[in-house]
Amino acid sequence: MKKIINNPADVVTDALRGLAAAHPALLRVTRDPAVVAWAGSPVAGKVAVISGGGSGHEPLHTGFVGPGMLDAACPGAVFTSPTPDQVQAAAAQVDGGAGVLLLVKNYTGDVLNFETAAEFLDNTRTVLIDDDVAVQDSSFTAGRRGVGATVLVEKIAGAAAAAGADLDTCARLAEAVVAGARSMGLALTAPTVPHVGSPSFVLPEDEVEVGIGIHGEPGRRREPLTDASALVAALLEPILDDLPFVAGDEVLLFTNSMGGTPLLELYLAHGIAEELLAARGITVIRRLVGPYVTSLDMQGISLTLLRLDPALTDLWDAPVHTAALRWGM
Amino acid sequence: MKKIINNPADVVTDALRGLAAAHPALLRVTRDPAVVAWAGSPVAGKVAVISGGGSGHEPLHTGFVGPGMLDAACPGAVFTSPTPDQVQAAAAQVDGGAGVLLLVKNYTGDVLNFETAAEFLDNTRTVLIDDDVAVQDSSFTAGRRGVGATVLVEKIAGAAAAAGADLDTCARLAEAVVAGARSMGLALTAPTVPHVGSPSFVLPEDEVEVGIGIHGEPGRRREPLTDASALVAALLEPILDDLPFVAGDEVLLFTNSMGGTPLLELYLAHGIAEELLAARGITVIRRLVGPYVTSLDMQGISLTLLRLDPALTDLWDAPVHTAALRWGM
Repeated sequence: MKKIINNPADVVTDALRGLAAAHPALLRVTRDPAVVAWAGSPVAGKVAVISGGGSGHEPLHTGFVGPGMLDAACPGAVFTSPTPDQVQAAAAQVDGGAGVLLLVKNYTGDVLNFETAAEFLDNTRTVLIDDDVAVQDSSFTAGRRGVGATVLVEKIAGAAAAAGADLDTCARLAEAVVAGARSMGLALTAPTVPHVGSPSFVLPEDEVEVGIGIHGEPGRRREPLTDASALVAALLEPILDDLPFVAGDEVLLFTNSMGGTPLLELYLAHGIAEELLAARGITVIRRLVGPYVTSLDMQGISLTLLRLDPALTDLWDAPVHTAALRWGM
Repeated sequence: MKKIINNPADVVTDALRGLAAAHPALLRVTRDPAVVAWAGSPVAGKVAVISGGGSGHEPLHTGFVGPGMLDAACPGAVFTSPTPDQVQAAAAQVDGGAGVLLLVKNYTGDVLNFETAAEFLDNTRTVLIDDDVAVQDSSFTAGRRGVGATVLVEKIAGAAAAAGADLDTCARLAEAVVAGARSMGLALTAPTVPHVGSPSFVLPEDEVEVGIGIHGEPGRRREPLTDASALVAALLEPILDDLPFVAGDEVLLFTNSMGGTPLLELYLAHGIAEELLAARGITVIRRLVGPYVTSLDMQGISLTLLRLDPALTDLWDAPVHTAALRWGM
């Protein structure tokens, strides 16, 4: 294992120390339990938006904390759900009296631990994110996994909360994003978890795992590594068929790197996806391209499509200032 | 070789198509020769700022085109200098009549080709960037290599040009950044160039190359892969000794990923660097953390320190809107 770390058991703690140092005016990072909160929180009368999950997917979720997006994120150990006390501590820090929206990726451990925390909190709503069309159940999941759409849910619900929407409205908008978003990913290589020390699986040099999960969970199938056009089509077709997305739809296209894929390849894949969508009569009106939902050093990409309406588009466009996503402020 | 590409010979062209699709309102991408220009250029009376270099280092330079930073970037083939006609075409597109500032990383091919182009252009100034303290000469370089400081030079000179500074002032500020910035990097793995198809070098599983170049050029030495604290110190000490940086200095600390390094490790390294600087009495007042000057899929990091004064700090803070760096707009 080649990693720039000290004690593998301390990776998340050590990384949070660096995150705090890098963003002193933006973030308030507390320990025992670990919470990354927006330094400006709580805001009286504003719905607090909280998410979290296993570490190793950065910038998800800690990189999305700040005005216009998350009030707090709860980083678990690598690929491990945050504990209920992290979620309770986050809520205690950022609740401004207008309720707490919990945005939870649909993994069994995450769902359970956020549910347990919610039992101790007043005035919360939970929205589950399950946008991955690849498989119905998986290693860590009953139902579909939550992947790329998480970024879009966090941005749009966070913008609504920042604009003064009430808890029901924020939850309804988050549910609308989940309902209108679909994703699928593929991997060329496996991630290596620091405290494990070896790759999570073995993928032959000439094969790709199509439908991979963000922890390296198995996808739909392994197939020969062909060219980018075939790979992008293999992700996009199941996404389009599922909602379905149809001619005339206006969409946000999110081309995500799993971490280790060069930006050169990522933009190349994005260009192919844009061409395939144009050929179907689907209009891309917003884009996001970059490593936003990663799996440590895994090489691979995922595509996420979100059907937009004017209200969602305005919330997407609203100003945001986080470590990983920033515009208008 | 596992890559998400079509024909290896077309990688740059295909990626530029994706870049254009991803940023239709921001960028104007032209071909034959390849130029990525800000869609708002030329701006009458504004100094035009142009950079460029081999592809494979994205987001450098194409991801830094936009208001407040570069007017145009000239992307060469992978790890290959742009041609003089690319630079001339870029200047023809973005010259607003107030002169053209060429920002050139100190690699022999880049220097030669930008010089050749400049002979055919009126009213240009060229600033060479050579911030890498690792080695004096290298595979592609006479003198020191240009690495991480490039982002800082492009941001600060771009901000000055946007604020209406004349060509001499923009060049003087770019030179001030070069004079006050020092960098060094290390690699855990080698990059794989698409048209080559195999890693650029072989690094044993338990070794790290300290002082690596961004094309995988040899560094100062190979040494056993130890822990993050030792690795960060091995980069920071030569940087501090070189300028030298001393107690009381106020600096920008740029912790850069070479591409394949997870953000978790990058923030961990950043935290260590902050602590080492604090112990020296050097105050970090600005930070940049992320994959900004990469070497395809290479795992590794580099550190760049820039000594700040109030003028440079204000220019760093000025609004910018590019694909990879954005704030305030």
